[in-house]
Amino acid sequence: MKIAIVGSGAIGLYYGALLQRSGREVAFLMRSDLPVAKERGIRVVRKDETFVLDEVAAFARAEEIGVCDLVIVSLKATGNGSLAEILPPLVGRGTKLLTLQNGLGNDALLAELFPKNKVFGGLCFVCLNRIEPAVVENYMAGSISLGPRLGEDLAEAEEIVELFKAAGVKTRCEPNLAEVQWKKLVWNVPFNGLAIAAGGVTTDVIVGSPELCGEARALMREIIAASHFFGYDFGEGFEDYQIKITRPMEGYRPSSMIDFVEGRPVEVEAIWGEPLRQAKAAGVATPKLEMLYALLKRLCR
Amino acid sequence: MKIAIVGSGAIGLYYGALLQRSGREVAFLMRSDLPVAKERGIRVVRKDETFVLDEVAAFARAEEIGVCDLVIVSLKATGNGSLAEILPPLVGRGTKLLTLQNGLGNDALLAELFPKNKVFGGLCFVCLNRIEPAVVENYMAGSISLGPRLGEDLAEAEEIVELFKAAGVKTRCEPNLAEVQWKKLVWNVPFNGLAIAAGGVTTDVIVGSPELCGEARALMREIIAASHFFGYDFGEGFEDYQIKITRPMEGYRPSSMIDFVEGRPVEVEAIWGEPLRQAKAAGVATPKLEMLYALLKRLCR
Repeated sequence: MKIAIVGSGAIGLYYGALLQRSGREVAFLMRSDLPVAKERGIRVVRKDETFVLDEVAAFARAEEIGVCDLVIVSLKATGNGSLAEILPPLVGRGTKLLTLQNGLGNDALLAELFPKNKVFGGLCFVCLNRIEPAVVENYMAGSISLGPRLGEDLAEAEEIVELFKAAGVKTRCEPNLAEVQWKKLVWNVPFNGLAIAAGGVTTDVIVGSPELCGEARALMREIIAASHFFGYDFGEGFEDYQIKITRPMEGYRPSSMIDFVEGRPVEVEAIWGEPLRQAKAAGVATPKLEMLYALLKRLCR
Repeated sequence: MKIAIVGSGAIGLYYGALLQRSGREVAFLMRSDLPVAKERGIRVVRKDETFVLDEVAAFARAEEIGVCDLVIVSLKATGNGSLAEILPPLVGRGTKLLTLQNGLGNDALLAELFPKNKVFGGLCFVCLNRIEPAVVENYMAGSISLGPRLGEDLAEAEEIVELFKAAGVKTRCEPNLAEVQWKKLVWNVPFNGLAIAAGGVTTDVIVGSPELCGEARALMREIIAASHFFGYDFGEGFEDYQIKITRPMEGYRPSSMIDFVEGRPVEVEAIWGEPLRQAKAAGVATPKLEMLYALLKRLCR
């Protein structure tokens, strides 16, 4: 089984490294990290251990990799426009595609590009930062919720889940991908968004300010209301739970905020724009999300 | 008749200069602009004319000025905490107090400090910038809407209006001060606020972006809804009118935005905090104002 990792941000480096360490054949498609990865390998820094993959199959062009069994897309969603050009050499008749990207719209794009292939999506609940080329830092073990774009592909989703489990990643198979995508947005929309709009602040500033924490909760309620409309129920107290899990993160910098302060593209459409459009189309009132999106679209242009 | 101008920002310099040019005795209480005003006078730059007041009675301490007939407070509202200390030497039994400050809560403070004196408020609809010490630039003629804090003082308000008219300022007497304060907030809340929250942008960016212009309009509707609750009606099409008057301003930088980008205090409580608290107390839904206030409070801390 041959796996391609497309995009060497924190997610791609981390899960690609774990899959390779578990014995899989992994090919990394990279740009900026390529020389470092070739020379020094990929390094993963965790609380309890640090490990280095010395031998990394890293490539600049998909043609050098060829057709794979599984293509994992871990590019930032702002780079989705290039997938139509990048992916074809990796995708054959039986190739499965897995997006580990943030927000909404990514699996729909893969399905559009490769209508005959099976598409899956995974949501990574994890704190990762790529601290320098080919070096990724992991703050908490975390987990992946992984599901098929179409319900009929559930059995294949379970096979991919086993792959990650064998690599030591807590992974759960979710029959409904859209549901877990909305579920993750309940955290990402407020915390990634307010961290940028409040001037590049860490999560402790948001939960520590009565006003900003109130806005975070109000944004969560809008996402939860939209989720309800689509038939998803995250249970009682889900809003409180988000605050509870955020407090111990202390000075955590949400990934979009890091992108923002470092002048890199921010996934504004995937995380805020597409959910806003879907909620609006469903007739769900989202005044807070609307304002946050308007500000982010300008701030992150 | 002796007039004191407390605070030599754009508003104080401009109206003080016009009052003095019309023959009134004006004393300026200044801090940073004092040496320049003493040496070179005050200069007013307008589209059609530039004039300089060579002889300016500028002072550093209120004791040097003594009791006045009219005390005009043109400090930024963020400096209100110092008024209890600054004003007393200027205020005698018959002294009238006029605040030309932005937002809500300023006349209430003056009435609290000097319960036996008559308090008035003026809203300046004008584009002014203090471009260097003792130099103020005026972009459009503009006008003042001036009224008594208490309805019973309407006749005295009319006397003050005449003073400004004689100085060449288009001034209108308004029987209800709170009404004109809310009316001005319909512009100030969205444009000063979004100009900061969107990253320090000019008004053309706001009216030129469908998303930001939509937010500006939504903020206006919240202020108009609160105003309705208090019994004020600005008439049909008032929201559209705000957009219409803003378009020709082109690259105008709202005063709060200038303060923000130049690192000076921003009148967050007067312009956003106090209106939000009054609207909330009245039970008017203001989700947009609430988010804007939360962001501004952090951004301008």
